[in-house]
Amino acid sequence: MAVETTTGTIADVLGAELLGRADLPIDAVAPIERAGPRSLTFIRTDEYARLWPGSAAAAAIVSRTLRVPGHNPHARTLLLVDDADIAVIRTLELFAARVAPPPPPSGVHPSAVVDPTAAVAPSASVGPGCIVEAGASVGEGSVLVARVFLGRGASVGKRCTLHPGVTVYHNCRIGDLCTIHAGTVIGADGFGYRPAPDGSGFLKIPHLGAVLVESAVEIGANSTIDRGKLDDTVIGAGTKIDNLVQVGHSCRVGRCCILCGQVGLAGSVVVEDGAMLGGQVGVGDNLRVGARAKVGAQSGVMDDVPAGESWFATPALNAHDAMKNIALLRRLSGRLDEIKARIKALESERANLP
Amino acid sequence: MAVETTTGTIADVLGAELLGRADLPIDAVAPIERAGPRSLTFIRTDEYARLWPGSAAAAAIVSRTLRVPGHNPHARTLLLVDDADIAVIRTLELFAARVAPPPPPSGVHPSAVVDPTAAVAPSASVGPGCIVEAGASVGEGSVLVARVFLGRGASVGKRCTLHPGVTVYHNCRIGDLCTIHAGTVIGADGFGYRPAPDGSGFLKIPHLGAVLVESAVEIGANSTIDRGKLDDTVIGAGTKIDNLVQVGHSCRVGRCCILCGQVGLAGSVVVEDGAMLGGQVGVGDNLRVGARAKVGAQSGVMDDVPAGESWFATPALNAHDAMKNIALLRRLSGRLDEIKARIKALESERANLP
Amino acid sequence: MAVETTTGTIADVLGAELLGRADLPIDAVAPIERAGPRSLTFIRTDEYARLWPGSAAAAAIVSRTLRVPGHNPHARTLLLVDDADIAVIRTLELFAARVAPPPPPSGVHPSAVVDPTAAVAPSASVGPGCIVEAGASVGEGSVLVARVFLGRGASVGKRCTLHPGVTVYHNCRIGDLCTIHAGTVIGADGFGYRPAPDGSGFLKIPHLGAVLVESAVEIGANSTIDRGKLDDTVIGAGTKIDNLVQVGHSCRVGRCCILCGQVGLAGSVVVEDGAMLGGQVGVGDNLRVGARAKVGAQSGVMDDVPAGESWFATPALNAHDAMKNIALLRRLSGRLDEIKARIKALESERANLP
Repeated sequence: MAVETTTGTIADVLGAELLGRADLPIDAVAPIERAGPRSLTFIRTDEYARLWPGSAAAAAIVSRTLRVPGHNPHARTLLLVDDADIAVIRTLELFAARVAPPPPPSGVHPSAVVDPTAAVAPSASVGPGCIVEAGASVGEGSVLVARVFLGRGASVGKRCTLHPGVTVYHNCRIGDLCTIHAGTVIGADGFGYRPAPDGSGFLKIPHLGAVLVESAVEIGANSTIDRGKLDDTVIGAGTKIDNLVQVGHSCRVGRCCILCGQVGLAGSVVVEDGAMLGGQVGVGDNLRVGARAKVGAQSGVMDDVPAGESWFATPALNAHDAMKNIALLRRLSGRLDEIKARIKALESERANLP
Repeated sequence: MAVETTTGTIADVLGAELLGRADLPIDAVAPIERAGPRSLTFIRTDEYARLWPGSAAAAAIVSRTLRVPGHNPHARTLLLVDDADIAVIRTLELFAARVAPPPPPSGVHPSAVVDPTAAVAPSASVGPGCIVEAGASVGEGSVLVARVFLGRGASVGKRCTLHPGVTVYHNCRIGDLCTIHAGTVIGADGFGYRPAPDGSGFLKIPHLGAVLVESAVEIGANSTIDRGKLDDTVIGAGTKIDNLVQVGHSCRVGRCCILCGQVGLAGSVVVEDGAMLGGQVGVGDNLRVGARAKVGAQSGVMDDVPAGESWFATPALNAHDAMKNIALLRRLSGRLDEIKARIKALESERANLP
Repeated sequence: MAVETTTGTIADVLGAELLGRADLPIDAVAPIERAGPRSLTFIRTDEYARLWPGSAAAAAIVSRTLRVPGHNPHARTLLLVDDADIAVIRTLELFAARVAPPPPPSGVHPSAVVDPTAAVAPSASVGPGCIVEAGASVGEGSVLVARVFLGRGASVGKRCTLHPGVTVYHNCRIGDLCTIHAGTVIGADGFGYRPAPDGSGFLKIPHLGAVLVESAVEIGANSTIDRGKLDDTVIGAGTKIDNLVQVGHSCRVGRCCILCGQVGLAGSVVVEDGAMLGGQVGVGDNLRVGARAKVGAQSGVMDDVPAGESWFATPALNAHDAMKNIALLRRLSGRLDEIKARIKALESERANLP
């Protein structure tokens, strides 16, 4: 990650106030404990501010509201910003642009198999081993990195990136500006069966719907989004989905939701705009998670979650009540012992009554 | 999904009693809230029956035992059936057959790599990017959609579909009429190690077994079924496995079981015929889930589950007891407060005794 | 699995004391209940020793310290060893070497796409459908089985095996002697976003780090190891990771750790040397699991776990306390009833006081 720049250049890019030297060379970004003498780091809490005098870093981006003791502006540099979170992202983008692999050339790799009826935009890139079936389409500037499968009639919008091994089943649609990481499967059949009337096993419920992934969605690696039964499974614009997440048939996930790693949504779940589900959360069939609700990691949702509330535990309930229950359980043994001691005292006094 | 048929044709196919017009054009199937004037929908509960007058749907399949108020047979059509569940499946099959992608042509795609000693039935289809190693076989009418890997000596029976990116390791056997969705891995080594006697780390336990998937099994996307240690891991006929499910080495899953999304079976677990495991359930090493037992979502099974019982919670226990415990915990704080108040009353009276 | 050997040969290989005949033909290894007359089995507990007279097995490996009643050395053979665990592994290796598929030929398969700037060792094997991008490298004796993707600048050490469909993103490094099972994804972007200041959704945090997998690591199928934000995500030497495991950005997993199936580590988690996480365990952001700590299956870790301790439950706590809580909850209803009965008795006596 050898990228050469200076504290002054970074201050210019961020619009930061420079407290120290503008000419320090910077070639890496690192956490404060592991930063070297040509590294830039970040100070976002008082705890990190106290580490500054002992850090080897040449420079740090710091929120204007924080006090950083022991700074020597003749030797090192602080870059004061209004919003450290955003400044971090802008800085990382600056470095990422210099170290990320260059975009692949547009056009279809000779090892790709593209049906003549498929529509691949001239500025799109279809990499080695990709398969694009009849009637499928790939929009302007989109990249299918390698070994991507687009089934019949599937479509990918503009400026998307589909990483190696992604599978998009027939008729599923991906909007613009989406990123789908390696191994993710969009549009497999949902999990629906009925016992056969003759007792011979299960009948499969055909799935007529597909999957609609709206724009600016990012989906992690090896996740699975099943196609809908009657209508489409929908992932709303701006939503971010982590790795190994399961979204069942006919779910409707709203805009700008967050689904952390290994979340599982059963069938026909509705997740409203801005809701956040922590890692390994499960949500049962046909339930609704309200707008901007937050569900804590590993919770098992068995009831609708009202908009704006925080829930936790299995079965999930309001996080405040859940934490109270957990605290109660932890000191329960002591409380029961105390109760018993008091009863025993009453009982033995009674025995001593005349 | 533009498929043109009529209410009369559907009634004929289902053997349904027609209450209304036989000539209404139908080109879609939709849920009652979102159905349009050329849509067929389903009414399976009183709740849905009450939505019928306000729905735009042209027709509905309805169980003969339900009352549907406000039906006008001059304008719209009800199709009365004995078993609505089965009628739904038959109807969806009717539409699916018209909208599903056509089966790929038989034969081996030029981009596939098939060992000369492999046996591919003439009616089978080996799609682009597939790899079929030495001694492997693909039965009559089976389809390897694309990028499927069949290792040495692996076999796929008749009329199976293996979706893109499926990997079947050496010597694993898939029966007839199986469907395996994209990204699923059959036959990776089980997770078995012993500490090395010299303290240098772990020794790997070699896995001599393979995986046997019997007939009419469906496995979802990105699931993993590990090969056995001494004998085979077995998935019984008619069993259905959802996405992202983990089946450990030497497990034996019986016939017609249901394993929902993200279930995890550790090693040598036995799941007997007809058992059902809810989403995200985990079952510990060497345990047995009895025939027709049901384990609720997210449960952690740490003991054998008796046949026919319903279990829930972590550690899982009889669902009745588990729900009682959960209910008790929820009102525990109040009960303890009440107990303390009564003790306090007794104590203060005692203090007032002469 | 037809491999022909004799009890004498196996005794020689293991350095075992032979109690019975040296000339019995052996062609399989099987569990004691399912062993046939040419099978070798294992006896590692008294329970299994009692099954020996009723087993059809020709021979058994048995720990020298166990008593095996009813053994007839004229008909069958016991092979006494000091360490049965190790003897089992050695025996399985003996059979595995005879039944495993032969290693693929070295060289690059004609269907693979290897950039001219990539460095593939002459003794390495790059199988069908593999893609090796610019600047990537594959060390001596390593095997990319099929459809493996190595991104720009990614490196694989010596004597590794990467199974079908593995994806290694740009700049990630795999050490020597590693095995990565099918479908696993190394180096996808971590899950990091910040709300956009203009309220329009989320800004993506660029990930400058990569993934470093040290030597002798085995990773199961369809697992995902995300790349680091500032520095690398690290998997320490000798660590074993099961299927469908999620390791978040910038995690540092130590040496010789065990991560069972479906474990999920959020971001920047530290797992110290020798720690073991049971199946489906989740660990929250920035937490530390101490050296040699053990976390029971399905636990949700919300606090640092001290070195050497066993923890369990959600939220996880010391396993001893967790099990006490669970036991208490199971008999809580009875204890509360008893307390109430005693209070009632006291109250009714009080009412009878003059």
